[in-house]
Amino acid sequence: MPDLPILPDPDDPRLTRPVEAVDQHGVRQQIRVVEERPLTIYLNSQEIVTAMTIGDHPEFLAVGYLRNQGMLLDADEITGVSFDDEVAAVVVRTARATDYEDKLQRKTRTSGCAVGTVFGDMMEGLEGLTLPDAPVRTSDLYALAHRINTLPSLYLAAGAIHGTVLCQGPEVLVYMEDVGRHNAVDKIAGWMRLQGVAGGDKILYTTGRLTSEMVIKTALMGIPVLASRSGFTAWGVEIARQIGLTLIGRMRGQRFLCLAGEARLQRDADPGRAPEEPRGARRKGAADG
Amino acid sequence: MPDLPILPDPDDPRLTRPVEAVDQHGVRQQIRVVEERPLTIYLNSQEIVTAMTIGDHPEFLAVGYLRNQGMLLDADEITGVSFDDEVAAVVVRTARATDYEDKLQRKTRTSGCAVGTVFGDMMEGLEGLTLPDAPVRTSDLYALAHRINTLPSLYLAAGAIHGTVLCQGPEVLVYMEDVGRHNAVDKIAGWMRLQGVAGGDKILYTTGRLTSEMVIKTALMGIPVLASRSGFTAWGVEIARQIGLTLIGRMRGQRFLCLAGEARLQRDADPGRAPEEPRGARRKGAADG
Repeated sequence: MPDLPILPDPDDPRLTRPVEAVDQHGVRQQIRVVEERPLTIYLNSQEIVTAMTIGDHPEFLAVGYLRNQGMLLDADEITGVSFDDEVAAVVVRTARATDYEDKLQRKTRTSGCAVGTVFGDMMEGLEGLTLPDAPVRTSDLYALAHRINTLPSLYLAAGAIHGTVLCQGPEVLVYMEDVGRHNAVDKIAGWMRLQGVAGGDKILYTTGRLTSEMVIKTALMGIPVLASRSGFTAWGVEIARQIGLTLIGRMRGQRFLCLAGEARLQRDADPGRAPEEPRGARRKGAADG
Repeated sequence: MPDLPILPDPDDPRLTRPVEAVDQHGVRQQIRVVEERPLTIYLNSQEIVTAMTIGDHPEFLAVGYLRNQGMLLDADEITGVSFDDEVAAVVVRTARATDYEDKLQRKTRTSGCAVGTVFGDMMEGLEGLTLPDAPVRTSDLYALAHRINTLPSLYLAAGAIHGTVLCQGPEVLVYMEDVGRHNAVDKIAGWMRLQGVAGGDKILYTTGRLTSEMVIKTALMGIPVLASRSGFTAWGVEIARQIGLTLIGRMRGQRFLCLAGEARLQRDADPGRAPEEPRGARRKGAADG
């Protein structure tokens, strides 16, 4: 565990670009917009995917992506992770020889399969997965929401970005942001994999919607609790209930809704005493989808 | 042109599902969450993709997706569009025999290509495209933002959804929503294609971020103006400037920022007299990404 949380650096010049804008009065001004840059991820000698990312923590993104895709196994020995800025590529090397040509092909093939199969493919890797019964204190949830809403972020600096936060009890461990919908959570998965950090006693917080993919990725990381300021989709709720994940959404000030895994909730806080949302936190919810 | 705008139907029972939730006080309540369901799109006998969608207007979604993918050409005669609810599939038939096996394969292949190529692929279909110089009145922009924020929507009813609106002058023509990031805009593209509506004198409004893909899809639809409550990404701005599209973001109350194509702006409104945002409109911005 790090002594200090890993936070986004809104002042990193590589993550935003100043562009000239003209406002409603015709006044010219410079604003900062977030970068989107392609990052090509290789597993050993095989080109896997090119992700659009803001570009920080490419090693975490690559390892987390491969892990969440089931291409990098927990048993795998990672012999190297190298990032080449010139060609915008990360190579993850493993002791095990890997070849996912079939899986890469199937991406196209199964993209057109029947309902049941789609659901089956989505649930791939979740069979037999059981999440620990670790309790979740509502006092921790309130403390985390308040902490996260008041931390520095690229979102507050430039907008148009998603945030995902790995938490333990009331503590923020890692806060990642990205333009790519799932890059932020993959970066956290990569950090956990490289640090050897387990998910069983953690809480994952996202600024985005609680969709089926978010629920599945959280479960694949072994994290039993997923919380968000945003809303739910039907499949997200359905899958969370199937796999016993605690799903908490619409966390705003003292309010929240639990749609799955309520058994883990320990109501040790008086909602009436929960900290109010700071102004601007509202906008945090805008990093949705 | 329809006499009345086409609007989302928040009361359509197929689009949301009632689920039981428990709030911060432990009180049980039913809330509505939006559906995500797979829809498999065929072009003639070829299976193209399965999109996750709320499921309204499958014909518009299929036609718009194929058009924006460059698989359905403007010159193509559409001989039929049939939706089968049982197997959740739409088949679009054309007089021209089609085969996009290579393109479907390439989806995987090029997913791992170099920076230049990614950009090249993204710009595919935009070469030689010129958008008309149709002026945009700021009075229309203010009227549209106010109108859209006060229209009924699934977003206000259940959240976790994106909205895209096709407008002409101060009028709303078509308002589409979807869980899928690009489904809402594809549904509008499909409606335009099937109605034979041109984009040159239209304005496209989205609740989401002004990313490179949104800018490209808008240009492919021949629409010269893209507006949003949300923010910008660097590539979105870069591409809009390259193709001469007017890009307007952060539209809130009387404020907005124009980052590209300012030449089209006709400042005929006094920003100080722009309508204030109704309460709750703020949440509209939450359908981001």
